[in-house]
Amino acid sequence: MKNLKIENNFTPGGILKNKLSILFIILFSFHISAQQIPKEKEEIYKEVAEKIVASALKENKGYEWLRELCEIGPRLSGSENSYRAIEWAEKKMKSLGFDTVWLQEVMVPYWVRGEKETAFITGSEKYEGKELNILALGGSISSDGEIEAEVLEVYDYDELEKRKDEAEGKIVFYNYPFKQEFVNTFRGYGDAVKFRSTGAIEAVKHGAVGVIIRSVTSKKDTVPHTGSMRYVDSLPKIPAVAAGYVDSDILSEALKENPDLKVKLKVNSQTLPDTLSYNVIGEIKGSEFPNEVVVVGGHFDSWDVGCGAHDDGSPCMQAMEVLDLFNRLNIKPKRTVRCVLFINEENGIRGGYAYADYADSASEKHVAAIESDRGAFTPEGFTVDSDSITIAKMNEWLPILEKAEILYIIKGGSGVDISRMKNVKALIGYAPDNQRYFDFHHSANDVFEAVHPREMELGTAAIAILAYLISEEGI
Amino acid sequence: MKNLKIENNFTPGGILKNKLSILFIILFSFHISAQQIPKEKEEIYKEVAEKIVASALKENKGYEWLRELCEIGPRLSGSENSYRAIEWAEKKMKSLGFDTVWLQEVMVPYWVRGEKETAFITGSEKYEGKELNILALGGSISSDGEIEAEVLEVYDYDELEKRKDEAEGKIVFYNYPFKQEFVNTFRGYGDAVKFRSTGAIEAVKHGAVGVIIRSVTSKKDTVPHTGSMRYVDSLPKIPAVAAGYVDSDILSEALKENPDLKVKLKVNSQTLPDTLSYNVIGEIKGSEFPNEVVVVGGHFDSWDVGCGAHDDGSPCMQAMEVLDLFNRLNIKPKRTVRCVLFINEENGIRGGYAYADYADSASEKHVAAIESDRGAFTPEGFTVDSDSITIAKMNEWLPILEKAEILYIIKGGSGVDISRMKNVKALIGYAPDNQRYFDFHHSANDVFEAVHPREMELGTAAIAILAYLISEEGI
Repeated sequence: MKNLKIENNFTPGGILKNKLSILFIILFSFHISAQQIPKEKEEIYKEVAEKIVASALKENKGYEWLRELCEIGPRLSGSENSYRAIEWAEKKMKSLGFDTVWLQEVMVPYWVRGEKETAFITGSEKYEGKELNILALGGSISSDGEIEAEVLEVYDYDELEKRKDEAEGKIVFYNYPFKQEFVNTFRGYGDAVKFRSTGAIEAVKHGAVGVIIRSVTSKKDTVPHTGSMRYVDSLPKIPAVAAGYVDSDILSEALKENPDLKVKLKVNSQTLPDTLSYNVIGEIKGSEFPNEVVVVGGHFDSWDVGCGAHDDGSPCMQAMEVLDLFNRLNIKPKRTVRCVLFINEENGIRGGYAYADYADSASEKHVAAIESDRGAFTPEGFTVDSDSITIAKMNEWLPILEKAEILYIIKGGSGVDISRMKNVKALIGYAPDNQRYFDFHHSANDVFEAVHPREMELGTAAIAILAYLISEEGI
Repeated sequence: MKNLKIENNFTPGGILKNKLSILFIILFSFHISAQQIPKEKEEIYKEVAEKIVASALKENKGYEWLRELCEIGPRLSGSENSYRAIEWAEKKMKSLGFDTVWLQEVMVPYWVRGEKETAFITGSEKYEGKELNILALGGSISSDGEIEAEVLEVYDYDELEKRKDEAEGKIVFYNYPFKQEFVNTFRGYGDAVKFRSTGAIEAVKHGAVGVIIRSVTSKKDTVPHTGSMRYVDSLPKIPAVAAGYVDSDILSEALKENPDLKVKLKVNSQTLPDTLSYNVIGEIKGSEFPNEVVVVGGHFDSWDVGCGAHDDGSPCMQAMEVLDLFNRLNIKPKRTVRCVLFINEENGIRGGYAYADYADSASEKHVAAIESDRGAFTPEGFTVDSDSITIAKMNEWLPILEKAEILYIIKGGSGVDISRMKNVKALIGYAPDNQRYFDFHHSANDVFEAVHPREMELGTAAIAILAYLISEEGI
């Protein structure tokens, strides 16, 4: 996933406060209105929820699909692998007997890493010739051969501003840490990611020739984490890379020993012309309201290292398995439930925009969309971009959703792709436990083995139960 | 941890129901009594809680102690390693400046595995000579040389009863799976563990000469999981082992091919005379009520494979770090906060009994005890063995505890060690996420690398905040 706007109330302190307020609303509304779901119906929903949970945990179908998907490799937009994966997903959906399966055409940016980038320290007594583990940031230009330059290490933009006169001709090294003290790791990510996004823009203003950032990760290892970065047309473009946690420590230590050392940096990436790609879409037609659509989805592209298992392969498999769970448990949803695997979330959101264009103009009505793009960990809750009455109503479903360990439904951001749609009553983000996510995110660590089958499948069940309730009850 | 009584209400479906009931109690009690914690005080508590969380997540001290502890190796009661670990913990507590540190003498059983046990399939076309990955169950006798016998595979005790006439002279193979469909893995464990505990007793009644169980684990690998087993004096004793998940599949498949195949089983374990060991105890004296004690603890022994990282090394380090957090944040608890590392939970609970004897007879008053023995995963809640008024009162602390992601406090079991104590107002079990626990439990998988620093330290913070609130507010 990309920069996610961290809502103020999506903080640990906010969850309970929200839940309490919502409970107050619910409790007081007992006096003026009957409960929306009659007891008898609630019991039926609970039985369905239990079946969904048991089937997901026992059969592990989505998890096994993830294994197949990961064997294809990473799926950066426009890459050969991405087309193989799209073909695989289309075939899989067809083999699962979804009512309709189709590809939606989308033009996507096509960035290629080229030959592996390199960075070597020179002029250091202790670390002479040391190769740093780096990855070009997504979108970075090539270095056009090798750059050898001194390094200006800064903590953040404030320090860069103070020392801007020293930046000319140097590589700026943003050594800003992922702050472990935040309980929610998305807060740590949101706090640190700006140097990845706009570090090159800020550095080039002062004459820098390249950028190295400390990887935006919670894990203390040597694995660099990539992710999208931006340029502006009004300024020159300089190459930008991320160094691993340990490598950032080494570079910083080497600079303390000799502030005049140099780094030889070679980046070989380039952006090729836009190319045709596809959103992969499958659906089960609603039995009563076929023109009312509930979307479940994730983004199908990934960065070009690891295999995008958590980001966002598992969530895509979860979305596919939601529909398969309905089929295998013989659940006929009243409203159409549609799985959308969006292409190009990581470096363009083109799939999200294309689907939104379609959805906003289609004759059908999108009642809700659920996006899963925060990894495949143990379920915690859902964050909902909607009005408070809708969210209060959804909170009445908690005793059913709790079968899959969903403990809260609060106001908050949804997902990068679905939030392009207008006129959808509820845009919903699936929120699993987030402690381990940024160990894997955008790096070679994000492989099949990083995903736990029970954690992933319990999440699938949580999303399936919510999609089922929306398809039955509306929203 | 050993067999934990799974309370009926400690099921996913029960959590919210309980929370709702408790909220009703709280809401209605607003009409008859003022809130127990004044707003201003609650704000102070929240600030302290935030400091505890930030310090735990940032400094990772307990996690680094776990690294040291795991380097010593596994810590089965009576083993040389267990004494090294006890010495290490005593020194560590003293170096941390706890007010008092002492060892409590405990006589413990001393079971030794001896030379690695072996099991080979013979008389199978496909698997001739195949060695199965097995581990003797804790407490198993030796096979006195090699047993070669046919195998009676049964699903459970019902099938054994039906086929009891076939058991004579055979090895009974309980091929009962860990049921993945239960959301709470402790339920899967509780459901399957009986064959480990009493399988040898039931098999020998029908003349069996040995027992193999399918390992009680959620993980599909070749690693066997041990754990305690029992004999009764009135019946002969036969050796009992656990086979890995994959190995159990192989044995079952081989038996389908040839029901007359044999297994050559060699177990070399024995129980030596009881030996002297120790609970390791350290405390910070209460500033206002030094004679009122809040215990935080875990068990310090582990099985003799892996290094007992989740079970129960991390929880012991959490308990130690609770006291260190108070010291490093200059928190002076009103009541005495005592860290107890209980010896011998796995195969005797002697440490738990010894401490209970002391606590029940001491002049001091134990107001509460918190045990952590369900792994070091992301916090979810606390289960409390106490009356409902006490639990309702504790629920008022949720907005503070939620700083460490604690989302519920419900009635339920506490911990194997602390539950030996009588006359303690609240016996509390720490309940983290449980999806991955039985991948590691009692096996060579339970190593330092299986513990995630953030998950562990957030748990430390949760326990520390609860211990702090009890020390300030009483219970």
